[in-house]
Amino acid sequence: MSPSAPSAPGGAPPPFAVGLLGHGTVGSAFDELLAQRAQEIERFNGRRPVVSGVLTRSRGSFQEVLAGADLIVELMGGIEPAREYLLTAMRAGKDVVSANKQLLSQHGEELFETARQHGVRLRFEAAVAGAVPVVRVLEESLSATPIERIHGIVNGTTNFILSEMGHGRTYDEALAEAQARGFAEADPSDDVSGRDAAAKMAILARLAFGTPVHLEDVRYEGIEHLQLDDLAYARELGLGLKLVGSAERRDGGLSVHVYPTFLYSGHPLASVAGPFNAITVESETITEITLSGPGAGGRQTASAVLGDVVSVMTGGARPPAPPLALEMITDVHSAFYLHFDVADRPGVLAKITQVLGDHEVSIGSVVQRGSGEGARLVMVTHPVLESGIRAAIARVAEFDFVRSPPRMIRVIAEEFM
Amino acid sequence: MSPSAPSAPGGAPPPFAVGLLGHGTVGSAFDELLAQRAQEIERFNGRRPVVSGVLTRSRGSFQEVLAGADLIVELMGGIEPAREYLLTAMRAGKDVVSANKQLLSQHGEELFETARQHGVRLRFEAAVAGAVPVVRVLEESLSATPIERIHGIVNGTTNFILSEMGHGRTYDEALAEAQARGFAEADPSDDVSGRDAAAKMAILARLAFGTPVHLEDVRYEGIEHLQLDDLAYARELGLGLKLVGSAERRDGGLSVHVYPTFLYSGHPLASVAGPFNAITVESETITEITLSGPGAGGRQTASAVLGDVVSVMTGGARPPAPPLALEMITDVHSAFYLHFDVADRPGVLAKITQVLGDHEVSIGSVVQRGSGEGARLVMVTHPVLESGIRAAIARVAEFDFVRSPPRMIRVIAEEFM
Repeated sequence: MSPSAPSAPGGAPPPFAVGLLGHGTVGSAFDELLAQRAQEIERFNGRRPVVSGVLTRSRGSFQEVLAGADLIVELMGGIEPAREYLLTAMRAGKDVVSANKQLLSQHGEELFETARQHGVRLRFEAAVAGAVPVVRVLEESLSATPIERIHGIVNGTTNFILSEMGHGRTYDEALAEAQARGFAEADPSDDVSGRDAAAKMAILARLAFGTPVHLEDVRYEGIEHLQLDDLAYARELGLGLKLVGSAERRDGGLSVHVYPTFLYSGHPLASVAGPFNAITVESETITEITLSGPGAGGRQTASAVLGDVVSVMTGGARPPAPPLALEMITDVHSAFYLHFDVADRPGVLAKITQVLGDHEVSIGSVVQRGSGEGARLVMVTHPVLESGIRAAIARVAEFDFVRSPPRMIRVIAEEFM
Repeated sequence: MSPSAPSAPGGAPPPFAVGLLGHGTVGSAFDELLAQRAQEIERFNGRRPVVSGVLTRSRGSFQEVLAGADLIVELMGGIEPAREYLLTAMRAGKDVVSANKQLLSQHGEELFETARQHGVRLRFEAAVAGAVPVVRVLEESLSATPIERIHGIVNGTTNFILSEMGHGRTYDEALAEAQARGFAEADPSDDVSGRDAAAKMAILARLAFGTPVHLEDVRYEGIEHLQLDDLAYARELGLGLKLVGSAERRDGGLSVHVYPTFLYSGHPLASVAGPFNAITVESETITEITLSGPGAGGRQTASAVLGDVVSVMTGGARPPAPPLALEMITDVHSAFYLHFDVADRPGVLAKITQVLGDHEVSIGSVVQRGSGEGARLVMVTHPVLESGIRAAIARVAEFDFVRSPPRMIRVIAEEFM
């Protein structure tokens, strides 16, 4: 109980005072949801949560909101002043809840370290996958189960666009449709570049593996350069295309990346269509569990934030543990889809496979198809180091019969799992 | 900290003493996993968990195990003496963890009430869906989000059998395969009758809706009577067959049941194949989230039990809240698949549809097919009260042109969602 919380009449426990920073779409949805659910939360927890103060750009004082609060909820977004407010709140001994993925992915260690030093809780379920409770599940499962790998579809905008492209629309048509339906911003670059997904994977990897991971440690590629014919060939090979974030133990280190990825049809993420999020957690003990649901809308995000508030009220969260140190590995093995646009001449396939073989790239399947004066060669490789395949592709690109830059896309294929 | 826990040397916090009741498959897997993970758990929680005593049929004393423990883990199974031990432990002020679905589904209110009276925690993640953390998610989301409906595939054995039947095997062949692969017991009746799933749905419904629900409140049907041709017709209609448990608010009350159910192909549970579990939670706020993973094996169950132990150590669980009281509703609206085996005569379809219409059963689609001297009529209805369709079917069964008992199977169809 905070000394600043006023006593309720009649000896009942005082309300649990929530100071709210930010009152945009998510902030106002949170404010409304908290009022709706306050009675039910009191029934379970013995105290009624109330919003004790609100800070927006145009009204309120941070110091007053802080002084009157048991807990601070930050829904402003952006780096500053959100970072400074959260650090100040934790130094004042207040628990904090945030939905700010930019801040957590770029300044996570500073926030975790401050929470640890001051013995307060830092909760951020809403920063990753909206109402899909992956943060909670990772935190609580972490000490019971050593996690080996996470694969996630953590950006609903790109998943919607790829679903539409799977139905034959071009990238531009699919993006326009996403914008018309409110799934994509007017400037979609943070989503389609993979950067938003990379920020979320940094947060998930930090949680799952206990090692500091920041946005700049995450390699990512977006979906802007994908071609419709790649999707058509992949369908022939029984593969579907998703923007997949992966965080996995590799060679004693940790690899975190976001790439467009072909998945075999039985993979738990393969059937996730439209503006949805899904995360698969693999470990030897639990084998594999998958969590899925809608990407973040205002009410879903508000619900995740309120869940964090309730978990602080029930005492169900701890200050973060000290970090471990796994080395970040960037050159990892993977299967690849390759697409070559070549002149239709004798000996072309032999020359390409010779170069691939020189770089120890072994081919699992090939589709060759004429296209007028040229031919398309589509291959799926067995797992190979990324550096090796990039070197091989660079050599192939130098042949005079290659008519446009070769394309490569990562593959998660059943036979290699 | 329990007064009975011995102090560790050097002023470090004493270990967290776990008294273990039962040392079969799950008990020994838990014992082993706890030893493997003790150091990591200590890193996060400041105390190291140890198994301080074990009770089996042949060794140990319950009173001694209880006296030396901070927390009791019950992995014996069955009703007695598990029930008496858990009640005694809670009355002695100890937190308890159990994986015992029979006990929780038949004596849940007594256990919840005892936990509430004595202010102790009662955790049971492993009793429902193995390593799939649905109990935790429901408990923690409950006060933030009013849940409207849960659909679950909560029995891996029957899901495996139905997957095999979907590939053209008969029920008997599929059951034999499940037994050969260790997914079904020698006596599979608890699984194939739907009773095991009903017990789990009782526990889930209690959690999600805060209302006492016991096994005897749950209507259930099994999969023993399903016919291969029902599956074939359903495929033509774009539907797949699962044993689905449902708990939902209906007409101000609560309906909980387990039935073989046809799902449209886009439903989140439709793609769950093999010995897996999956649960979909729907609410207005979060729309819909789905959790899936392997059905319970020894190590998955042990992992869920250890997760419960860790959540007690972190203080992240509360004694149960007092129950609410929603009325149990048994006669609910649903769409149905109907199968009639009739003599191939003029006027048959008209007579059947006349009877259905008299009972306000409206038909969404019909497939008619000759089969030598007879014909098969397959229909999918629009949503209708179960009592209404049962009355209609009973009337149809009296016609002399009906050659075998009509069959009906519940449908969850996209156009009605």
